[in-house]
Amino acid sequence: MGITRSAIEESLKSFISEDIGLGDITTNALIGQSQKGTGWVTCKEDAVVAGVEESLVLLELVGCAGKSLVDDGKPVETGVKILSAQGPARALLGVERTMLNLLSHMSGIATATADLVSIANKASKDKVRVACTRKTAPGLRYFEKRAVELGGGDTHRLRLDDAVLIKDNHLAFSGTIEESVRKARAAVSFTKKIEVEVANADQAVLAANAGADIILLDNMTPQEVAKSVELLKRKRLRNNVIVEASGGIRKENLASYAKTGVDIVSVGTITNSARAIDMSMKIRSTVS
Amino acid sequence: MGITRSAIEESLKSFISEDIGLGDITTNALIGQSQKGTGWVTCKEDAVVAGVEESLVLLELVGCAGKSLVDDGKPVETGVKILSAQGPARALLGVERTMLNLLSHMSGIATATADLVSIANKASKDKVRVACTRKTAPGLRYFEKRAVELGGGDTHRLRLDDAVLIKDNHLAFSGTIEESVRKARAAVSFTKKIEVEVANADQAVLAANAGADIILLDNMTPQEVAKSVELLKRKRLRNNVIVEASGGIRKENLASYAKTGVDIVSVGTITNSARAIDMSMKIRSTVS
Amino acid sequence: MGITRSAIEESLKSFISEDIGLGDITTNALIGQSQKGTGWVTCKEDAVVAGVEESLVLLELVGCAGKSLVDDGKPVETGVKILSAQGPARALLGVERTMLNLLSHMSGIATATADLVSIANKASKDKVRVACTRKTAPGLRYFEKRAVELGGGDTHRLRLDDAVLIKDNHLAFSGTIEESVRKARAAVSFTKKIEVEVANADQAVLAANAGADIILLDNMTPQEVAKSVELLKRKRLRNNVIVEASGGIRKENLASYAKTGVDIVSVGTITNSARAIDMSMKIRSTVS
Amino acid sequence: MGITRSAIEESLKSFISEDIGLGDITTNALIGQSQKGTGWVTCKEDAVVAGVEESLVLLELVGCAGKSLVDDGKPVETGVKILSAQGPARALLGVERTMLNLLSHMSGIATATADLVSIANKASKDKVRVACTRKTAPGLRYFEKRAVELGGGDTHRLRLDDAVLIKDNHLAFSGTIEESVRKARAAVSFTKKIEVEVANADQAVLAANAGADIILLDNMTPQEVAKSVELLKRKRLRNNVIVEASGGIRKENLASYAKTGVDIVSVGTITNSARAIDMSMKIRSTVS
Amino acid sequence: MGITRSAIEESLKSFISEDIGLGDITTNALIGQSQKGTGWVTCKEDAVVAGVEESLVLLELVGCAGKSLVDDGKPVETGVKILSAQGPARALLGVERTMLNLLSHMSGIATATADLVSIANKASKDKVRVACTRKTAPGLRYFEKRAVELGGGDTHRLRLDDAVLIKDNHLAFSGTIEESVRKARAAVSFTKKIEVEVANADQAVLAANAGADIILLDNMTPQEVAKSVELLKRKRLRNNVIVEASGGIRKENLASYAKTGVDIVSVGTITNSARAIDMSMKIRSTVS
Amino acid sequence: MGITRSAIEESLKSFISEDIGLGDITTNALIGQSQKGTGWVTCKEDAVVAGVEESLVLLELVGCAGKSLVDDGKPVETGVKILSAQGPARALLGVERTMLNLLSHMSGIATATADLVSIANKASKDKVRVACTRKTAPGLRYFEKRAVELGGGDTHRLRLDDAVLIKDNHLAFSGTIEESVRKARAAVSFTKKIEVEVANADQAVLAANAGADIILLDNMTPQEVAKSVELLKRKRLRNNVIVEASGGIRKENLASYAKTGVDIVSVGTITNSARAIDMSMKIRSTVS
Repeated sequence: MGITRSAIEESLKSFISEDIGLGDITTNALIGQSQKGTGWVTCKEDAVVAGVEESLVLLELVGCAGKSLVDDGKPVETGVKILSAQGPARALLGVERTMLNLLSHMSGIATATADLVSIANKASKDKVRVACTRKTAPGLRYFEKRAVELGGGDTHRLRLDDAVLIKDNHLAFSGTIEESVRKARAAVSFTKKIEVEVANADQAVLAANAGADIILLDNMTPQEVAKSVELLKRKRLRNNVIVEASGGIRKENLASYAKTGVDIVSVGTITNSARAIDMSMKIRSTVS
Repeated sequence: MGITRSAIEESLKSFISEDIGLGDITTNALIGQSQKGTGWVTCKEDAVVAGVEESLVLLELVGCAGKSLVDDGKPVETGVKILSAQGPARALLGVERTMLNLLSHMSGIATATADLVSIANKASKDKVRVACTRKTAPGLRYFEKRAVELGGGDTHRLRLDDAVLIKDNHLAFSGTIEESVRKARAAVSFTKKIEVEVANADQAVLAANAGADIILLDNMTPQEVAKSVELLKRKRLRNNVIVEASGGIRKENLASYAKTGVDIVSVGTITNSARAIDMSMKIRSTVS
Repeated sequence: MGITRSAIEESLKSFISEDIGLGDITTNALIGQSQKGTGWVTCKEDAVVAGVEESLVLLELVGCAGKSLVDDGKPVETGVKILSAQGPARALLGVERTMLNLLSHMSGIATATADLVSIANKASKDKVRVACTRKTAPGLRYFEKRAVELGGGDTHRLRLDDAVLIKDNHLAFSGTIEESVRKARAAVSFTKKIEVEVANADQAVLAANAGADIILLDNMTPQEVAKSVELLKRKRLRNNVIVEASGGIRKENLASYAKTGVDIVSVGTITNSARAIDMSMKIRSTVS
Repeated sequence: MGITRSAIEESLKSFISEDIGLGDITTNALIGQSQKGTGWVTCKEDAVVAGVEESLVLLELVGCAGKSLVDDGKPVETGVKILSAQGPARALLGVERTMLNLLSHMSGIATATADLVSIANKASKDKVRVACTRKTAPGLRYFEKRAVELGGGDTHRLRLDDAVLIKDNHLAFSGTIEESVRKARAAVSFTKKIEVEVANADQAVLAANAGADIILLDNMTPQEVAKSVELLKRKRLRNNVIVEASGGIRKENLASYAKTGVDIVSVGTITNSARAIDMSMKIRSTVS
Repeated sequence: MGITRSAIEESLKSFISEDIGLGDITTNALIGQSQKGTGWVTCKEDAVVAGVEESLVLLELVGCAGKSLVDDGKPVETGVKILSAQGPARALLGVERTMLNLLSHMSGIATATADLVSIANKASKDKVRVACTRKTAPGLRYFEKRAVELGGGDTHRLRLDDAVLIKDNHLAFSGTIEESVRKARAAVSFTKKIEVEVANADQAVLAANAGADIILLDNMTPQEVAKSVELLKRKRLRNNVIVEASGGIRKENLASYAKTGVDIVSVGTITNSARAIDMSMKIRSTVS
Repeated sequence: MGITRSAIEESLKSFISEDIGLGDITTNALIGQSQKGTGWVTCKEDAVVAGVEESLVLLELVGCAGKSLVDDGKPVETGVKILSAQGPARALLGVERTMLNLLSHMSGIATATADLVSIANKASKDKVRVACTRKTAPGLRYFEKRAVELGGGDTHRLRLDDAVLIKDNHLAFSGTIEESVRKARAAVSFTKKIEVEVANADQAVLAANAGADIILLDNMTPQEVAKSVELLKRKRLRNNVIVEASGGIRKENLASYAKTGVDIVSVGTITNSARAIDMSMKIRSTVS
């Protein structure tokens, strides 16, 4: 991932406007147009940092110069300064909250991701990848998927046009798994993978035989997942497919899933339920 | 709050586009243009529901008809169906994830808010109001403030042009509290309130004497907060000001703050760290 | 007020496009891409200048460098040059009309405001503030409120989410003044003021007793306004509220209103009926 | 003129949003979602009405039904109701100010235009057309040109790509009038007219000889204008060109210009300095 | 493919505005607001029709009702009427050119695609698929890919985030084919395919061995392509990969490529060089 | 033509986003953020170049520096490098396809235009101008008209508000040619020309007599066109009007039309059916 600067700018400008409205009346009342300031963003808990790159753009958009003190994707401990900024005091104060909101939100997701990645790596000897899902906050798909990537996770489908994923709700309309995979293969581009969500080991075999590229074992216990992987192996289908487990997986049970022999474990909560990382910004008059 | 339908629509359309991209290739491959479906959204944990109104607009935007089964702001128990929808199967599948993401996100915030409101009410005999802050996900200010309102919370400042809030970072440039309040009063419209963030009881008195409308007691212990309220009372300033406590307040210590005699307790985590509420949608072919 | 540069830019770009369409065909036909020019904007009548800051951005947006010769908010006499500009001749000619339109419009409002402010100050010994209303040209709210501010006026509510103002049209639905103030206080954030529009002195007392922050005396004669202020004083309510007079106030009768003891006099015509200030721009080839 | 409904809607939606922000907090606090209202807009001075068509769209955009009581372009006397509206009370109150602002602004321009058109018609026996210029409020070009048209005026150039108009500022770069007209003719499409601004009768002859389609007599006295027309006649050039007078023309001297034998008199103030027409809206609960 | 109606609408509205500007002055001058018309679009050459669905939306956007007489994707002969429309005469005339431009453009692409698909099918006994590329007109990606789909072609990558395609320009920076495939596999989501562009048979083998999902044989003669396929077969790699031929393929030599044993033949000219299909619209007054 | 840089930028940014989506996953996976590259665009067939100016803006938008090696509007032979670019390798690869698509498309139109202009000039001794029509790809009106201009063609009407063109479909509603011209003259601004489409010589005379500025001889043979011109001459109307021939004109028969004595020959296919010019870009690591 990593969109062009001009594309990020559009979003970032709208984020600033959303907070400033017709003007930061406090700052404009109290601080002169020519006063200069220096600011530091401090991370107030252990975290994997994300959003620094976007923050530097935010600062530039309001006429300030930012400097990254920690690279996106790096872990920091409580109290570490992650970026500094210089410029007109009004601009620093005007952008402060928007910047902290983005940093806290993205770092929260990166941190939650990194946490799970580390558990999965340990349990699977680096064989299992932790992926996010499309459970992202509306309007923030790019920023949240980017944060997952920075936390070491797999971004999974970016959008509904990205890959085929046949679920229960589709099968209710489209017939059997075999028939549905066949229809999808005929209709979509050769550049797309086809994934099928299944509820048990037998369906997993059906999907693999039908030519699915990926099998999603949905809402199964670790035991059922392991059994499904085993059956695929026995049927000599395991090497033809990527196997993903999903549904109800969380920090507590992640290790058990990671040991089942699947390739991917996907978790919705790393995007939609990550706690914001506590960060604050101190701004002081620049001594000249 | 409650913006016009046409203003919500712009955001909702962009949310749909973000997920669909150039088309839901799975659905288009598997389901015919004329197939009709019926769907239900089920809440899979106890929650205060928010986002139903927006969901009905989302459904209408893709050509489906939604029906609210639970009103926004109402509590539901696990397993309750909160809305139903009818229309072209392709449209229901295409909008499913966007709708669930918005419902889960807004309901998460409303639920977290209601939880704290109930604690504060009990501790303060309904005298203390729980407010959110400007710690919202970029781009989602309206939806998150609306969810707080539905959860029974106070929306606080919507934007930086809404009211004056003089903080530490301002005082570093603008001089004393008295001077800063005076400057603000002269510069901003008579329609705006002026709030001052203070770090201790003495500053609270200074701010009240300077004519602040609201005093924000920041990062104090419940004891310090109580002491500040007491001092204001002794100086006969308590009735002139609204007193807000903020900083480090969370579910565990909320009751102690709520008992200090303040009017408002504000909490950033109800917007930036609320867990999404687990919801799912089942879609089936409409029997005609 | 004073929004971020990037937010102004969006509006200013759309203003330029509105005038240029698919290209300034006259200029492109007559002037070479490499010709450079210098221009001066001259104010052709006495005025308070507004829009210079925005003009410098306009010039920069088309690749020219502007220089302010008079600061926004300052009075000038006929014939004074208020800004100069240098850059590609094509760009100067292309932006000329848009820049003059904005300068003339904003300066017209600032001038009308300053005129009334001076009358009110004299009549009230600097005690009464002149405010504008929400009677602004659609799409130009920011620019017109900003011009009022530069002319020394109060910007009043920026939007309908800014403060509560209970009017006749609301009371037709919401019951008595007391009940309405109570409902509003319960529903809106503690950060918002509540203003009530009243038609006579008794209603003013009702509103003040109900806890309104601001009383708007609407469409009263100066005598009725004075009487209302008097009654509030007698009831010891005057110090609890800000008193605003509005409705039918214009240059001719402003002094009489300003002497009534109110705090604020608001006038719709300074935004919606201000004459544009006559300005012109001369552009000449840069001698190199 | 008359753009498509969908194009108007974009502007109108942004006008509504500009005023409502994150919600009409007064109305939402005081009026229930199911309350219905009826409203009437009354014109409080004699005027030519403009903006009714746009108002009906505004009303529809917020879910109300409007009814035109007076057609755009028609004169009304003080006290006449120009439109009525029905729908949710919240929506009526939320759109009220935006609708009145647009109606007052457009009607102000239409009224000023009609006033001058009537003077010009009388003075010239219907031979002279009153035109506006590009002196319009930024962002409102369409609405102001449309109001001129409704007032009976000529819309002149809509944008810089519409027709060629060679002015003093161009000639400073492009050489003689003859040379400039020749260059323009070679460079622009055959579908465009070429107009030349001149400062005296001799230049008018030069421009006409050079093949200009329109001659703009700029900043001349009525006598100089008449003399220029006379000279063009003597040189047998009058029938080849349209003659426009402009610069410093206002209500007081319009008749003298209209009698000079020109075809067009253009006036910047009908768009940039027209007073808003006073209008108000009364909203009452719908008796069902 | 097939985006939501609301997403198409945004584009279609901008297309209409682009042509109408501030109003269709011809139509507004000549035709009354209440006149009704009926129109028919006739295809004036043999073609595969595309754009009818979008045309019905265009018509609805301007307040007319359209009726499809031929489904998108169907072949028609010269003279066939493909859609009819009813509504205000002004609206029909205002949308005519925009609708014809879209229909002609999309049908041109669908026709060119269908032509090549038929050749490829015949030459390969339905085994080879014709794909387009990312060589689309800026801003029209969706409409052109959709037209390819309607013509029976494969849409290939929709965007750069869709699938990995390692080309010569990448290899100049990223090292060997093996190394590049390995890096890509580690960095991108498991939901993405990896394609490698190669210049000869040996590179094809390298890419297949490296684990590429798709091999793009670029700018080879049919003989070289056939040889590469043969080598892959000999190395037992043919079944692991999809093989695509591209570069310099056109109608004249398509059959030779289609016989080489590849899976996909991709052709840039079906999007960027397709001739518009000649269509016209006749509009007549509706007899009521 | 030639819109402001900021107006072009909006379109160009959307073109880039359309191709990049949420990120160029290939490039991001394979190339480091600090790697620098140099690129050259080579024209692979004889062409008239267009789009270089826009390409330099595209490059700047992604943080690269471009250099024009050939000016827009100049002819080049196969193999000529038309521009070079330097900057971050990721940015060069990300913008490559968008830039080539725009260059190929615009150069295709400029080349087709120049080809016809040269034929027309030779046949008419430089008296006849080749014009395009409004048959442009939706959304690309500016870029295609600009390419026509660069190819030496006339841009004709830019939009429906540009000039009046009365066609068959209008006459079906508006009555006779005379009546329609009269209505149009009364309704539209004096700055607009009026053109009338006619089907034969007699109608041409009617239109000229009615005061049309331009006569469009539609779908006539060269013989009929010549006869119409002759009749206009005989009636002494030829000098009053510009005469345009249109309908079914293509490279093969253009010379015959150019010899008929008309002023303008307009051809839809130079915009809607021009073949893209084949161009490619080579990017290599910058040796530092």
